[in-house]
Amino acid sequence: MAYTLAQIAAHFGGRVLGDAGIEYDQITTLELANSRQISFLANSKYRAQLDSTRAGAVILGEADAEATDLPRIVTKNPYAYFAKVSAMLNPYPAAVPGVHPGAVVGAGAKIAPTASVAATAVIGSGVVIGAQSVIGAGCFIGDNVTIGVGVRLYPRVVIYHDCVVGDHLIAHSGAVIGADGFGFAMDEGRWIKIPQVGRVVIGDDVEIGANTTIDRGALDDTVIEDGVKLDNQIQIAHNVKIGAHTAIAGCVGIAGSTTIGKRCQIGGSAGILGHLRIADDVVIAAFTLIGKSIHEAGSYAAIFPFSKTDDWRKNAVHLRHLDEMSKRIKALEQALLKQGSIKGNN
Amino acid sequence: MAYTLAQIAAHFGGRVLGDAGIEYDQITTLELANSRQISFLANSKYRAQLDSTRAGAVILGEADAEATDLPRIVTKNPYAYFAKVSAMLNPYPAAVPGVHPGAVVGAGAKIAPTASVAATAVIGSGVVIGAQSVIGAGCFIGDNVTIGVGVRLYPRVVIYHDCVVGDHLIAHSGAVIGADGFGFAMDEGRWIKIPQVGRVVIGDDVEIGANTTIDRGALDDTVIEDGVKLDNQIQIAHNVKIGAHTAIAGCVGIAGSTTIGKRCQIGGSAGILGHLRIADDVVIAAFTLIGKSIHEAGSYAAIFPFSKTDDWRKNAVHLRHLDEMSKRIKALEQALLKQGSIKGNN
Amino acid sequence: MAYTLAQIAAHFGGRVLGDAGIEYDQITTLELANSRQISFLANSKYRAQLDSTRAGAVILGEADAEATDLPRIVTKNPYAYFAKVSAMLNPYPAAVPGVHPGAVVGAGAKIAPTASVAATAVIGSGVVIGAQSVIGAGCFIGDNVTIGVGVRLYPRVVIYHDCVVGDHLIAHSGAVIGADGFGFAMDEGRWIKIPQVGRVVIGDDVEIGANTTIDRGALDDTVIEDGVKLDNQIQIAHNVKIGAHTAIAGCVGIAGSTTIGKRCQIGGSAGILGHLRIADDVVIAAFTLIGKSIHEAGSYAAIFPFSKTDDWRKNAVHLRHLDEMSKRIKALEQALLKQGSIKGNN
Repeated sequence: MAYTLAQIAAHFGGRVLGDAGIEYDQITTLELANSRQISFLANSKYRAQLDSTRAGAVILGEADAEATDLPRIVTKNPYAYFAKVSAMLNPYPAAVPGVHPGAVVGAGAKIAPTASVAATAVIGSGVVIGAQSVIGAGCFIGDNVTIGVGVRLYPRVVIYHDCVVGDHLIAHSGAVIGADGFGFAMDEGRWIKIPQVGRVVIGDDVEIGANTTIDRGALDDTVIEDGVKLDNQIQIAHNVKIGAHTAIAGCVGIAGSTTIGKRCQIGGSAGILGHLRIADDVVIAAFTLIGKSIHEAGSYAAIFPFSKTDDWRKNAVHLRHLDEMSKRIKALEQALLKQGSIKGNN
Repeated sequence: MAYTLAQIAAHFGGRVLGDAGIEYDQITTLELANSRQISFLANSKYRAQLDSTRAGAVILGEADAEATDLPRIVTKNPYAYFAKVSAMLNPYPAAVPGVHPGAVVGAGAKIAPTASVAATAVIGSGVVIGAQSVIGAGCFIGDNVTIGVGVRLYPRVVIYHDCVVGDHLIAHSGAVIGADGFGFAMDEGRWIKIPQVGRVVIGDDVEIGANTTIDRGALDDTVIEDGVKLDNQIQIAHNVKIGAHTAIAGCVGIAGSTTIGKRCQIGGSAGILGHLRIADDVVIAAFTLIGKSIHEAGSYAAIFPFSKTDDWRKNAVHLRHLDEMSKRIKALEQALLKQGSIKGNN
Repeated sequence: MAYTLAQIAAHFGGRVLGDAGIEYDQITTLELANSRQISFLANSKYRAQLDSTRAGAVILGEADAEATDLPRIVTKNPYAYFAKVSAMLNPYPAAVPGVHPGAVVGAGAKIAPTASVAATAVIGSGVVIGAQSVIGAGCFIGDNVTIGVGVRLYPRVVIYHDCVVGDHLIAHSGAVIGADGFGFAMDEGRWIKIPQVGRVVIGDDVEIGANTTIDRGALDDTVIEDGVKLDNQIQIAHNVKIGAHTAIAGCVGIAGSTTIGKRCQIGGSAGILGHLRIADDVVIAAFTLIGKSIHEAGSYAAIFPFSKTDDWRKNAVHLRHLDEMSKRIKALEQALLKQGSIKGNN
């Protein structure tokens, strides 16, 4: 697959400068690109790399439009443009439509003729799979699951019964959607299981990383809105709601019944306790536990800064005495206040 | 499936007030319930919701017995009662007994006639599977594994060879039981693998969440006692022992050879280092690392409180200077002590 | 399988003292061993256990050579020696060579005659699998993957297309190698996927734990060098490079484009942010987030020490006021300096 800048600009817009008729077959970094490849400059601070690149063409922003003589496309958002061109140059391999004879399909399943179901996939009864969707090897789709169009389930994705998946979901291997939430009642020293009768309902254009888990709701549903992007190894507990276009990095855990706003960004290994509300446009740093609702957009953090282990040990020991330290400071202030050496203002 | 309050009370006890003869087919929250459904009041502080609920009946405690005119069951523990009624109203779909022709079963496996083995499951040689147990699609059961009665393995659970599973285990998709523990000896700059020859031994009434991993013992066994409940994405290392009725939330990691007591509760993303002992009835907060043994029941925490990133940055920088800060306070105290402005008492 | 000390020493060296002709069939701890079994003393501080052990023979270091009369092998590194003897006494069960009829193999795959492919495994087209490699049930190997010799994939490992795996890899169940990295460009409020066209390239003698995920590179490759050992539930993001013989404990997350040196050790649930460089021979404590590059070998930590929850609450509240606390100390110092009660030195 190869395209000229003219063809690319016809698809995605932008202003072509230089020779628009040369074909390119890949897009990559300024450092890696060769003359058959396009590159991109998404951040002006790397402008110097334009001088040394061997790329055949470049995508860049208005500010850098004249920073090179290479054939180029000038656009408002070079990084997004790069993503679009890359998708054009790197299409998914065509999946063979139809159900592989090594798949197992339950009674009453409705699989679109253009959908593809691989060997060893197991599809429950009453399942609906939309056009052009691809179900990989070893996937399990529980009874009465509904899957939209253009969905791509990599091998070994599991979707439990009754869940609903919108269009264009991408779910990576090992993802488990709709397992029971963690709900128990204590009864005379033993935990009694609370049946989890809700579902997981997933909007359109969602991506779910490898080995990420999203539990079904206890009574009501767990909801993942349109455009949400989840990295690997994430745990989403029952009845969580994640707002549209929120992106969550790997290893994050979100406890039950928490509602997260739209367009949030949550860093790796962060956590959010249960029954909280996080506003729209909140950014949470990696490794940060959110223990209270956040009502205001903005950036939040709680990271313990690392140091050499010896230094850490010397400093960390005082964390168990901060309250005492605070009281000692107050006592000193009182003494100096009494002397008249400092003035009180609190 | 529908039951009257009279039928329900005949099963689970409690005192019926109001019409005991109406049938209900679901149980849910006061907010969600309709007239064909039962609800429950497990916490008196939500008593006001009784006025607005459209539920057909309610389960509640003695203190709230007269807080509604709806048909109701009065019981000591409404939440546990709710769990039991929900299990009655939401039974598992019946699994077809027998081994699906698309399963693969090794030589000498003994599968109870009432057990169910789904398509694409692979059962090793010498495996024993008890009555009414359900082995989902894509499960792998290694050679000589013993599985009790009434066990439910959701699709794609893996149990390595020689492990022992008690009765009524529920294991969710992606759980891996009995993989090798992480054991290596350093030998002239390279790690040499230490064969992991122990097993995982799991008691009765255990639940294991999606994508949770429990490693086999190095020399001796890893042990999960009766009634333990494990959420998703948990890592249990080799030779860990978890006491009966302990519940562990998602994303927790427990390092090798640690013993955890009975009835403990461990919050999400917490961690426990290796070779420790945690007493019975210990509660560990989310995101807390336990680095020493805990000999006393109680609640333990180590969470860095979050704040706006700018505030966090201003404050966190001092964590690398706490020791110096402590010394400066001491120097001030010495100076004031010398002046006689404060009195020494330490 | 049983061996005499003479046979063992012929394999692995060391000095035999006492009867070299008795056969032993297992190796275990001094506490667990019986007279048919060998034990080992890897740390002199457990020397007292030699008196009570029922082991038939012992492996120990020079310093302890005369601490027992049992038949024994004296060696420089008893722990590594134990690992080697254990591997000799606990060989893997022989896998049946050939492709099980219940496996699905794509066009043009080249599977060595001595390799073993289990039922329900799915092998893509153009895959190469080396001699003596074992592909477990339910594994998925994507198109054009290359797998070396003596590799062992436990059931349900997934390797995405085009990845390269060296010799003697051990990968445990649920491991996912080569899923898409988490790469998106923001475009007018929606995330646009950046195709992940790199691969995962894995050296020789690597072990990958259960449910661990290693993402493929965005443009260039993700690289795991020789001898790297990864525990369970680890997340390795796109374009990470991990140096030879580095060992990483469970639940660690490493963000994109970070390079980790050789012979590092990373504790459980630790994290490393993206685009960093970690030097060779760095040790990172459990639960520690590394937010900046580390240029110097050594040990690093950032753990918040746990305490009883009430104490933690009292102390932790001051973390939001450390900056103010620091300013108050400074003000006190200024006042005492003015008095001449302390001397200034900063």
